Amino acid sequence: MSVHDKNDDNSEAQGSPDFDDDFQGKLDDLFVWRRDVRHFRTDPVSDELIDELLDAAALAPSVGNSQPWRFVSVEQEERREQIRGIFASCNREALEDYRGEKAKLYASLKLAGLKQAPVHLAVFVDTSTQTGSGLGRKTMPETLQYSTVLAVHTLWLAARARGIGVGWVSIIDPEEVRAVLDVPDSWELVGYLCVGYPVEEHAVPELVRQGWQDRDNAARILHKR
Amino acid sequence: MSVHDKNDDNSEAQGSPDFDDDFQGKLDDLFVWRRDVRHFRTDPVSDELIDELLDAAALAPSVGNSQPWRFVSVEQEERREQIRGIFASCNREALEDYRGEKAKLYASLKLAGLKQAPVHLAVFVDTSTQTGSGLGRKTMPETLQYSTVLAVHTLWLAARARGIGVGWVSIIDPEEVRAVLDVPDSWELVGYLCVGYPVEEHAVPELVRQGWQDRDNAARILHKR
Repeated sequence: MSVHDKNDDNSEAQGSPDFDDDFQGKLDDLFVWRRDVRHFRTDPVSDELIDELLDAAALAPSVGNSQPWRFVSVEQEERREQIRGIFASCNREALEDYRGEKAKLYASLKLAGLKQAPVHLAVFVDTSTQTGSGLGRKTMPETLQYSTVLAVHTLWLAARARGIGVGWVSIIDPEEVRAVLDVPDSWELVGYLCVGYPVEEHAVPELVRQGWQDRDNAARILHKR
Repeated sequence: MSVHDKNDDNSEAQGSPDFDDDFQGKLDDLFVWRRDVRHFRTDPVSDELIDELLDAAALAPSVGNSQPWRFVSVEQEERREQIRGIFASCNREALEDYRGEKAKLYASLKLAGLKQAPVHLAVFVDTSTQTGSGLGRKTMPETLQYSTVLAVHTLWLAARARGIGVGWVSIIDPEEVRAVLDVPDSWELVGYLCVGYPVEEHAVPELVRQGWQDRDNAARILHKR
């Protein structure tokens, strides 16, 4: 039974699964080893695996059950080359914001796996969707975008559990990407994902290992009110 | 060793864990059974468990490793009452957008667990953080908010694996919530979470079960370019 098949009323009768200590420990390991990947092997990822990842993504939470995510597989080499051009241009501009050692470090970072990754997935939010009838997004319309982010993260975790790495590219002009991919005007880019088998696996973020940014204690405080 | 302790350089030497078929199947089950919860038991959730959830959240991916999420535990009854007031007012206004059967259905939906849930977590993004030195968010500044969403989702999955339910409340005025919780001006509300042990567990979203919104096939298509 696929992930998708489980999500129907029949599964309700099966009762809730037991997530034991062993699973909880492995889930924590998954969070640790998930990582943003920029170094990919060029081996293909099977269509069946990509299908499993989309099945998982479709289970993500969404505001009003709006399911606004739209996945585009970028397969034509000409379009990929255009995307790489957009990244290169945005990356050059970003470099100009840094000075001295930070500029040197920025220039040395590998920030995208757009050349090696066998699969490119552009993820959009359909801002015009009527699905969910607007429930939950009147005061916080950005929850539509957030729902799409939840689908990306679900896909990312499902991928890592299968030994597949994901790298989220955000150094990119979202309007230019939309034009290159010829999608409806109402689709807004949320993330551009490189997907493939990683060259190496790590428990520590690449930006920590490269000395760009360490863990921030401010992020771990529980404020009380 | 806690989740947090694992995230240091020593763990690199341990080698990548084996996520086998059994784990992958259980992870898929977790995605199915995660669900947005609005019916909570009033039993307390231990501080140790909340700590584990925050440890997990701190492992979420973030743009430039900016880790911009800020968690606020809302504990004072007076503040909780104010939050419930904000929800009630926003919910009344939202109801006015619906007519006929949809309005009746909306009015019948239970959309928040703000009265029963023993733990309230308000999740903010610190839009002023310098952590990450702006990397990756020049052309897509919204990735700072998205990073916070990734932390919420990580916490949500870690919670469900421990039998704890999370309900994300978005029918709320984010500015009013910020004022009630007296947080810095640079903090922007991303989500208000009800956390506690669920009354029931389900594999099917409540909005599907209640007839508000079924699965949308448009969300499962892989578009090709």
